Amino acid sequence: MLTNNRITKLLRIDYSIIQAGMVWVSGWKLASAVSNNGGLGLIGAGSMKPDLLREHITKCQTATHQSFGVNLPLLRSDIVDLIRVTLDENVKIVFTSAGHPGRHIDKLLERDIKVVHVVSNVKQGMKAQSVGCHAVVGEGIEAGGHNGTDELTNFTLVPQLVDALDIPVIAAGGISDGRGVAAVMALGAEGVQIGTRFAATVESSAHPNYKQRVLEAKDNDTTLVLKRAGMARMIKNKFSDEVNKMEFDGASAEILREKLGSKRERLGIFEGSIDEGMMEAGQGAGLVKDIPDVATLIRRLINEYEQVSLKFQHPTTD
Amino acid sequence: MLTNNRITKLLRIDYSIIQAGMVWVSGWKLASAVSNNGGLGLIGAGSMKPDLLREHITKCQTATHQSFGVNLPLLRSDIVDLIRVTLDENVKIVFTSAGHPGRHIDKLLERDIKVVHVVSNVKQGMKAQSVGCHAVVGEGIEAGGHNGTDELTNFTLVPQLVDALDIPVIAAGGISDGRGVAAVMALGAEGVQIGTRFAATVESSAHPNYKQRVLEAKDNDTTLVLKRAGMARMIKNKFSDEVNKMEFDGASAEILREKLGSKRERLGIFEGSIDEGMMEAGQGAGLVKDIPDVATLIRRLINEYEQVSLKFQHPTTD
Repeated sequence: MLTNNRITKLLRIDYSIIQAGMVWVSGWKLASAVSNNGGLGLIGAGSMKPDLLREHITKCQTATHQSFGVNLPLLRSDIVDLIRVTLDENVKIVFTSAGHPGRHIDKLLERDIKVVHVVSNVKQGMKAQSVGCHAVVGEGIEAGGHNGTDELTNFTLVPQLVDALDIPVIAAGGISDGRGVAAVMALGAEGVQIGTRFAATVESSAHPNYKQRVLEAKDNDTTLVLKRAGMARMIKNKFSDEVNKMEFDGASAEILREKLGSKRERLGIFEGSIDEGMMEAGQGAGLVKDIPDVATLIRRLINEYEQVSLKFQHPTTD
Repeated sequence: MLTNNRITKLLRIDYSIIQAGMVWVSGWKLASAVSNNGGLGLIGAGSMKPDLLREHITKCQTATHQSFGVNLPLLRSDIVDLIRVTLDENVKIVFTSAGHPGRHIDKLLERDIKVVHVVSNVKQGMKAQSVGCHAVVGEGIEAGGHNGTDELTNFTLVPQLVDALDIPVIAAGGISDGRGVAAVMALGAEGVQIGTRFAATVESSAHPNYKQRVLEAKDNDTTLVLKRAGMARMIKNKFSDEVNKMEFDGASAEILREKLGSKRERLGIFEGSIDEGMMEAGQGAGLVKDIPDVATLIRRLINEYEQVSLKFQHPTTD
């Protein structure tokens, strides 16, 4: 199910394994490595100004001749410029998130770009389908970074999207190994989008301190912060403890946004500030036990997936 | 994987499908129906005084000659009496929850009772194993009713328990169909514990209004309430809206407990008060589309599971 399905055909990839477009993590280096190893790499425009995005796209085009894409957060104030760069540079695949999927989609569709929207409930999935998206990513609350307020888990979101939609569903949230890949395929997904596990690879541009914290994280070392001001999942630290206490004490959204400031993600993920940064990561961090290169990781995901498939084929020898 | 594994052997059942011991839902009628159809039925002692528990156990023994068990909440003030009834009546299987798994376990083990503890993180799983439990239920945050404060999802909790423990793991939370059963098997579970889906069956003792609300529930119609006073997941209604607003406004645990009162679960689940009761249900409610009898449901779960298995066996025809 990992090869030769609607997602592999849509995105022209060998394995329906997609690397999430993550802020401060997924530039051309990570994206091209994933694409060169049979998956789909995504450049995360969320932490890039338009000129930097252009630079990453052109470098990625040099580094791989395989499919790759760009993740565009639709709520960005300069979204029109980001889209212009994407069109200028002939990007063929765009994943959109954080905003109404219909905004600007016509510009993408008329250039025959494949558009995939990230959703966190069934209603958003229906909307994405109705405006012409080719697929959706269903992202559960276990995912790192920004999350949907309904707090649906991957496990319950994915099959409900599959039942409601005609377009294919890619599952995201908490997927760190081949068991997780097989599990979401059992739920009806035709692809996986993997974030945190790819953030802790050699080619990820995250700071070594960040990768180390992901490596060390136990099952319950992430927390959802800022539920009143743009909810996000991150690794617990001094900053998250302070924010959680402020929230518990009833701090307003305004005060929380002031505490957050504008550079917490950069500080945590890219600059490696263990205490003061936002080290965004999903609950799948607990399953991360090494920092491999991308080729090793993708081979392992496929091998683990095939091991699980074999268990379904020979259940009595289990 | 659904038959002939460590869980089916431990509990002496045909299929490793376990019906959760739910307050106001799972008396002798539901438990015996599940056991008579090849799964494990559990009598939920959480809403029973000792004498009523005795009545349900003896009725269940008359209604089935298959394995069944009792769920005991260890934090109950009369737990010693509940255990005495369980021992008096020769119950062979006990699922414990809500409390330290070591409390009273010796009394159970010396009578050769199989003991399974419900956990919500890896540390609790290790503790359960170390005090002699034969298996654990790993329950994710999508589950209905009371939940662990770490808010780990089924999807990330289960594989981490499997990696950390030698004893077998039963998955719980959000499992409503055979896709979900297959998915947790892919994650390494050897059994499933299903709550909400069994609460909406003919044999469940929940009020018809409750079953109807589960039937109607959409993907995002449950909410986690009372995070400061014994967190629980329930179907959204007037009561949950009021409590969520109180929590948002910073109400203390004491004020929240006063609002909760002592009979909200009974009011919602057993008496069918749509506005004022706690209608505890998991995110899997969104997948519930009918109110079948138990025999029909279990046959369907197995058929759906086998359909998924076939997809793993013939991936290219997918």
